Amino acid sequence: MIPTCYCWTSLETLATEVFKHAGVSAAKAKIVAESLVHADLRGIESHGLSRMPIYVKRIEAGLIERVVEPQLVMQEGAAALIDGKNQLGAVVGLMALEQALKLARQTGIGFVGVRHSNHFGTCSYYAERAISQGLILLVLTNAPEAMAPSGGIRPFLGTNPIAVGIPAGQEPAFLLDMATSVTARGKIVMAAKKGEAIPADWAIDQNGIPTTKPEQALLGSLLPIGGAKGYGLAMFIDLLCGLLTGAAFGPGVKSLYDNWEHPQNIGHIFLAIDIQKFLPLPLFQQNMDEYIRQVKNGPKKEGTSEILIPGEIESRKRRERLQKGIPFSLNVEDELSQLCAAYGLDLKAARIAP
Amino acid sequence: MIPTCYCWTSLETLATEVFKHAGVSAAKAKIVAESLVHADLRGIESHGLSRMPIYVKRIEAGLIERVVEPQLVMQEGAAALIDGKNQLGAVVGLMALEQALKLARQTGIGFVGVRHSNHFGTCSYYAERAISQGLILLVLTNAPEAMAPSGGIRPFLGTNPIAVGIPAGQEPAFLLDMATSVTARGKIVMAAKKGEAIPADWAIDQNGIPTTKPEQALLGSLLPIGGAKGYGLAMFIDLLCGLLTGAAFGPGVKSLYDNWEHPQNIGHIFLAIDIQKFLPLPLFQQNMDEYIRQVKNGPKKEGTSEILIPGEIESRKRRERLQKGIPFSLNVEDELSQLCAAYGLDLKAARIAP
Ligand SMILES: NC(=O)c1ccc[n+]([C@@H]2O[C@H](COP(=O)([O-])OP(=O)(O)OC[C@H]3O[C@@H](n4cnc5c(N)ncnc54)[C@H](O)[C@@H]3O)[C@@H](O)[C@H]2O)c1
Ligand SMILES: NC(=O)c1ccc[n+]([C@@H]2O[C@H](COP(=O)([O-])OP(=O)(O)OC[C@H]3O[C@@H](n4cnc5c(N)ncnc54)[C@H](O)[C@@H]3O)[C@@H](O)[C@H]2O)c1
Repeated sequence: MIPTCYCWTSLETLATEVFKHAGVSAAKAKIVAESLVHADLRGIESHGLSRMPIYVKRIEAGLIERVVEPQLVMQEGAAALIDGKNQLGAVVGLMALEQALKLARQTGIGFVGVRHSNHFGTCSYYAERAISQGLILLVLTNAPEAMAPSGGIRPFLGTNPIAVGIPAGQEPAFLLDMATSVTARGKIVMAAKKGEAIPADWAIDQNGIPTTKPEQALLGSLLPIGGAKGYGLAMFIDLLCGLLTGAAFGPGVKSLYDNWEHPQNIGHIFLAIDIQKFLPLPLFQQNMDEYIRQVKNGPKKEGTSEILIPGEIESRKRRERLQKGIPFSLNVEDELSQLCAAYGLDLKAARIAP
Repeated sequence: MIPTCYCWTSLETLATEVFKHAGVSAAKAKIVAESLVHADLRGIESHGLSRMPIYVKRIEAGLIERVVEPQLVMQEGAAALIDGKNQLGAVVGLMALEQALKLARQTGIGFVGVRHSNHFGTCSYYAERAISQGLILLVLTNAPEAMAPSGGIRPFLGTNPIAVGIPAGQEPAFLLDMATSVTARGKIVMAAKKGEAIPADWAIDQNGIPTTKPEQALLGSLLPIGGAKGYGLAMFIDLLCGLLTGAAFGPGVKSLYDNWEHPQNIGHIFLAIDIQKFLPLPLFQQNMDEYIRQVKNGPKKEGTSEILIPGEIESRKRRERLQKGIPFSLNVEDELSQLCAAYGLDLKAARIAP
């Protein structure tokens, strides 16, 4: 069966309406809708519209702010600090990004810390915007507990992602966007549903023993990439995003799904770099193109048809989905349908005729 | 047999003399000596005085500059660019660090790119200095080709390390300092010498197949941590250190050991953050202490006596070696002995009476 595909612009309009119905202003609703559809276009289903129902649920529960505006609480030289005031993560993130880009244009570098924010979607949403303006962006965010420290058995650190966007010229930009865990928790949930075993390097059970049983893994902890190295990376991200900004950190970061008493209080870091302070942009872009071609033209191992640059899988998926539309898994489709219906909207209206 | 131990201050003095005999000015000789002994104190033998012979050989071959000074070629707002003028890496690195710290104190953030540098030792040398001044430091450097891109079979990227130093209060600071490869090439060389097998996730052979044979691994490529994730991390480090600064990148970075025609032209990035722009330092330090204690007091898996913070292994080693002295492996001891003797100096003079 060919899955139903949806038109991205119609989805954006629809999602904007949903958030508006939930009491979010039109401008903010549009940002969040855009950030979620951005993820779906890039094939990151886990961070796409599949998150809309939980965002709306938290808004309605009063755990995400609708009205109060995020606030710039410090700006000195090249550094700034934003209090997200518990607004939607993408709204806060976009404001922080814009501040970072502005500072970078003025001082070469913009470093913006954020506290009191919420889940802000994929990091690539921000990196892509910086790239399109010819700037380099590093984005970090902390996230609710999911990984134990090396040697520990109880989750302490989030899957704290790091993303770096670097513009190229003719070639697709470099856009690394990765969790510091080997895999996402969602993939283990999926394996559990299907009754499949998982690779032994994905997770540990409650006693800290690597497990191939998804049920055991879900009671235990995700594993970081590279053992103690990934543990260290996830911790540095938490220390900058959480501790430095005054946001929550470690197990203090509240779950998007399971905590119905407190806001998440997530922290982010945005570092923007103005390339032109270092090299003329055209020269930099030309060097990037050459670099990328050199990597891609290198000798490949048997069975590998192509060497890929970080971000290439997703930018291709995006090109395909801009044209052919976005498919959803059945349960996501159901959930979105119901959510739309609850507000008198119709998901079907966004379908592309097959 | 108890290995001979050496006194770190005597080693520093001796190494300073060696570099002076090689034509390096007293001040610069002292910096390089200090950076190498720093690594030995922390138990990072691979980046300690064991590198002195190759540094001296390159100085004498005219491949590292003795006289010309590194130069600040751009400084605007919070960003700066230093041309290392092919000076010793630690000399260039220290100048860049100081510029980054200065900018951070002025503007909250200091971002310094470096080109035309050389191997600069361990990143922790710089991070430790920033920590001792109450600042956060992120250091990146590129390095000669050692890792293939994911799907490739020929080395393209260096083991490009990332380090992050974050000061604490009573507790030892957070000091993550890690190569982006699973392991160092030196460990494979060691296994080859001992005729031991290596873990299958360390390296691939010339055909891109994971191998447990060290000889095959040495003809092939090291593997990055976390598969494509580590590949992406190593590439972003190369793009910032190499491409953005105008230094060499990819296989253009010359080998410290095997290239006797060209300078290495390594690039570095130093990003310093002034904590006090975000939070009062004492509060930050107190939160760090609490964070560290919380991590360390978490439940441990059977067989783990203690949960460690990144940098803790090395800071303990340092405390021990400050007191008891630094041991060398026999071949390093021989090489250092010979190098000293060639300049009429005596390594034995630095020994601690057993
Ligand atoms: N907001 C949050 O709290 C949060 C937390 C964790 C993750 N996330 C998001 O989840 C998303 C998915 O993260 P992930 O770690 O599962 O991603 P992933 O493992 O699918 O990809 C990680 C990166 O590796 C690149 N990549 C993958 N295979 C490659 C190959 N063969 N060659 C070259 N590059 C390759 C991808 O382009 C991507 O940049 C990200 O967008 C991230 O921002 C968000
Ligand atoms: N200049 C260069 O070109 C270059 C290139 C590569 C590496 N290096 C240097 O080599 C050195 C060694 O790198 P490496 O990757 O082999 O280091 P490593 O693997 O020994 O340690 C990496 C990091 O993990 C931490 N760590 C290790 N085990 C831990 C545990 N159980 N719990 C908590 N933390 C733990 C360490 O404290 C360290 O910060 C570094 O100093 C690096 O700067 C330099």
